[in-house]
Amino acid sequence: MSTKKTTHSGAARSLSGTYIGNSLKDKASGSDHAEQKPAAARRPAGGDGNGRGSKEPVKIIFLGGVGEIGKNMTAIEYGEDIVVIDAGAIFPNDETPGFDLIVPDITYLLENKSKIRGLVLTHGHEDHIGGVPYLLNEIRVPVYGTELTLALIDNKLREHKINGIKMNTIAPGDVIQLGVFRIQTVNVNHSIPGSLALSIRTPHGVIFHSGDFKIDLTPVGGEPIDLRTIGEIGDKGVALYLSESTNIERPGYTMSEKTVGATMDGIFADNVTRRIIIATFASNVYRIQQIINLAVKYKRKVALSGRTMISVVEAAEKIGEIKAPDDIFVDIGKIKKMADSELVIISTGTQGEAMSALTRMANGENSSVVVGDNDTIIISASSIPGNEKMIDRVINNLYRRGADVIYESIEKIHVSGHACIEEHKIVHSLVKPRFFIPIHGEYRHLKKHAELAEEMGMRPGSIIIPELGDCILLTSRGIRRGEQVPAGSRLIDGEGIEDEKASVVLEDRRQLSDDGIIIVALCVSGGEVVGEPAINSRGFVYDFHRDYQKEMMDVIKKTISTYDLSRGSIDELKKSIKRALYWYIQRKMKQSPMIVPIVVEI
Amino acid sequence: MSTKKTTHSGAARSLSGTYIGNSLKDKASGSDHAEQKPAAARRPAGGDGNGRGSKEPVKIIFLGGVGEIGKNMTAIEYGEDIVVIDAGAIFPNDETPGFDLIVPDITYLLENKSKIRGLVLTHGHEDHIGGVPYLLNEIRVPVYGTELTLALIDNKLREHKINGIKMNTIAPGDVIQLGVFRIQTVNVNHSIPGSLALSIRTPHGVIFHSGDFKIDLTPVGGEPIDLRTIGEIGDKGVALYLSESTNIERPGYTMSEKTVGATMDGIFADNVTRRIIIATFASNVYRIQQIINLAVKYKRKVALSGRTMISVVEAAEKIGEIKAPDDIFVDIGKIKKMADSELVIISTGTQGEAMSALTRMANGENSSVVVGDNDTIIISASSIPGNEKMIDRVINNLYRRGADVIYESIEKIHVSGHACIEEHKIVHSLVKPRFFIPIHGEYRHLKKHAELAEEMGMRPGSIIIPELGDCILLTSRGIRRGEQVPAGSRLIDGEGIEDEKASVVLEDRRQLSDDGIIIVALCVSGGEVVGEPAINSRGFVYDFHRDYQKEMMDVIKKTISTYDLSRGSIDELKKSIKRALYWYIQRKMKQSPMIVPIVVEI
Repeated sequence: MSTKKTTHSGAARSLSGTYIGNSLKDKASGSDHAEQKPAAARRPAGGDGNGRGSKEPVKIIFLGGVGEIGKNMTAIEYGEDIVVIDAGAIFPNDETPGFDLIVPDITYLLENKSKIRGLVLTHGHEDHIGGVPYLLNEIRVPVYGTELTLALIDNKLREHKINGIKMNTIAPGDVIQLGVFRIQTVNVNHSIPGSLALSIRTPHGVIFHSGDFKIDLTPVGGEPIDLRTIGEIGDKGVALYLSESTNIERPGYTMSEKTVGATMDGIFADNVTRRIIIATFASNVYRIQQIINLAVKYKRKVALSGRTMISVVEAAEKIGEIKAPDDIFVDIGKIKKMADSELVIISTGTQGEAMSALTRMANGENSSVVVGDNDTIIISASSIPGNEKMIDRVINNLYRRGADVIYESIEKIHVSGHACIEEHKIVHSLVKPRFFIPIHGEYRHLKKHAELAEEMGMRPGSIIIPELGDCILLTSRGIRRGEQVPAGSRLIDGEGIEDEKASVVLEDRRQLSDDGIIIVALCVSGGEVVGEPAINSRGFVYDFHRDYQKEMMDVIKKTISTYDLSRGSIDELKKSIKRALYWYIQRKMKQSPMIVPIVVEI
Repeated sequence: MSTKKTTHSGAARSLSGTYIGNSLKDKASGSDHAEQKPAAARRPAGGDGNGRGSKEPVKIIFLGGVGEIGKNMTAIEYGEDIVVIDAGAIFPNDETPGFDLIVPDITYLLENKSKIRGLVLTHGHEDHIGGVPYLLNEIRVPVYGTELTLALIDNKLREHKINGIKMNTIAPGDVIQLGVFRIQTVNVNHSIPGSLALSIRTPHGVIFHSGDFKIDLTPVGGEPIDLRTIGEIGDKGVALYLSESTNIERPGYTMSEKTVGATMDGIFADNVTRRIIIATFASNVYRIQQIINLAVKYKRKVALSGRTMISVVEAAEKIGEIKAPDDIFVDIGKIKKMADSELVIISTGTQGEAMSALTRMANGENSSVVVGDNDTIIISASSIPGNEKMIDRVINNLYRRGADVIYESIEKIHVSGHACIEEHKIVHSLVKPRFFIPIHGEYRHLKKHAELAEEMGMRPGSIIIPELGDCILLTSRGIRRGEQVPAGSRLIDGEGIEDEKASVVLEDRRQLSDDGIIIVALCVSGGEVVGEPAINSRGFVYDFHRDYQKEMMDVIKKTISTYDLSRGSIDELKKSIKRALYWYIQRKMKQSPMIVPIVVEI
């Protein structure tokens, strides 16, 4: 609950004068919003001086995480100040084949670089921090986050060779001033330690940003969500509530993380002679803590499998978020000598990711862990939509190796990190906002969250369902849509970055993958085609009943012979060949491969 | 319940002397198995004459539908006779990009063409009949199926211009003789009319094939599953039970189709002033019948949207499987003049298929149906694994257009067509087989079904979990694995067919889609490279910070200059260029595109 100054890659982590105090500790000194002088008074905002009552609206700009689950990024702007909340990433799917990562399009931030006062991270999940290096690479702003969040970013920045960024460790209850904005952090429960909601004081009142949260009153680690402070903030008046919507379709309450421990305890008790392998998200430190506790109870050693698992557990242990006896861990390379009953392996790979530890076990390609019929394997996670087939394949292959597999559809070995409907109602009733914008969800989630807010008594006119690139204008009188800003996806592939909307590469990959490619090479000398054209294809299905290779050659030759290069250009000749071949293949083969003529001029 | 002779594409549909009788009707005449002379007695089988007690085993050959859900196909062989059960297809996914359809590899059947006595279809779903045209195109065998099943195949054969096949309409209770095999059909419930289980008498006893089934004692159409006959067959002794395993992970019972009608009735009652659009599987004739009944009750007209929907409803109405008042249907092109309250639209597109009626509505591309805020849209189906993201996109876009959308996670507007655990227990207890082989499921489903059989008292040694290509040998003493036969997938693309295992095209498409392609064209004349090489790329991401185009050209030129064509071949030069460029791109760009050198010789 206190701020720390730590060093990242040689750069001093400091709060650089923006840290104000810890509202939880400093309650008596009146450090919470309503009793403090509006921050805007200290800084001119857009030229009209005083914040409250100003005619210029506060802008809430959605650069990610609305109309989608993933790559969360919201900018809040007033006058000359912008604060950015989260910089997430999303993993590519079959619509973006071959890319490594997708991060938000930050054109708007680049255009307003000088205004950005800081990047505040609500927690350390990839959909909130995965885009951080790509942002910092172009815009060097101070970063604020809890200890684990910053520890997770540390690895990323090292990998990307990004130095000299001011990293500011904050704790729940801290208050930071970023330009005109005064931000109080509030502890919430989620599936990773150090998760925050943010109460952001602006010249047009308080914006309350829920972060990702659930209500867990018996948490495995850390404190229960700080409902009292949320209530106080609500009582003092919240202008706008931004709330996550992930589980808005689920009735009731999300179960406490502790229930997973109880289920797992039963599985440990039932499998005393068997080896136990548990796959879970590396970032779910509470889950890992519970497994360690069970290992202690059942006298097993813990081996970690998967690079991320090892690095996250190390980081979490270092900062005290994981507590484990000194001798509990055993190196994964040394488990072969151990009895099955003495061991529990914690592994990555809950989503069936191709190169993950669990997938390699399922495929018999994990040299450290050879799965057999004395293994009980628990997949302690739910499927992220789009990954179902991959996960199914892993489960099937684990069964094929004789293992017993326990997964979500069989037993309660996972709980979500997100609030269900009744929890949302509680927080809505505490925040009591004048205006509401649902975030962190696909359109249908946002729509249903808007409906919930109406059910709770809000007028439809006080609610806006945002889309990517929306700039919502908040004044003391209301909220409305402003002009859209550039927004979308940047696709990362190796060292390259593509703008999704403008990406010819993406279009090409889709066509190549669906229909293949036919290449026609020509040699042109002195304004004439010389020699035989060469034809090659990749990813194209021939019907072997006919000699299409010869027929295609005839089509090409005929096109060349009827074309007078001395009167036209090589580009036009290419187009003619492309057209002729396209129609021929369409008609004869009912296919439409990419056709690429390529000309060597000598 | 009687057989019919109908005509397909000019060919006489007849039972060609193999029809024996209707066991339900002909009970008195003793036409069921045990009282008939073994068919094998009439035909020599493998040279050793009499079937029962023969040393030659019956072969059960799995060509599809095991270790996967889809493309079901099982062959049963004895001596000179083979009967094929089902010939399904599976839809391609992101692992098989660009293909139209996947059907079983029928190499084994082609090698044993002369033995095949018939193709028996359990019901008309695509995963049971989708491969029929590809089979019949190469092996012209008589086809046996219920009326709706054959009506659905009729369209397919017309499309594929396949004529002269003997199509034999059968009904539940019918008995047919195919070579040595005597097959009695048994009525089961499923999500399409005319679904059958098969009791197949072989020289080593009865094989009972469940088909796809559930127990629905209050069905919307047709009769409840014939548990009495199944019990009789079981009492007389079943050697081997082959049973579908789709819902083996679901506890309890599948609800009756009638419950869906009740939920929908409530939705109709709640939405009297709104237009109602219901997406469902075209083949779910019972669901469509219930919607028609509700349309009558609530005085709405029915418009059909989607090519398949129209053709299936037409076919089903023609043979009496759908009963509708004369004036209930209205042309989808004429609905614009109608009041919303007067209309219900039944549409295809429950899986978010790109070109389906519902997807086009969601994208605003359906000229007949423009979705707006007075529409209540019901998606009356569950997602087939792998389709979740596409369906989500459709739901989100329908919400964006203002519609209210009701789908499975919100309300009970769908029931499965497959038995859950308790139903399986009932049928297992009736069939009481000596041996058991679970089918129609991924490996984990088959494994769990095997566990259920053990729970029901079977010995593990009496159960085999089959894999694709397995040939299981049944004798009166037991079952065991024989030698594998060729099996796998044939990928259909336009007019072309690829063998999945050997498919270079598939490999190429995956690489093209992941990494793109770089093409290098050279011109070679008189043993020397002449002119500048030409470079082109597709689907490859460049890092725009450097001039890679120039650097790549340098790599290529350097390779050419150090290569002496007079002493090596053009192919070797190509390989050298490929290698040099590959390493350069790997090192500099951390990518690995396909590299295709192409040479024009002049």
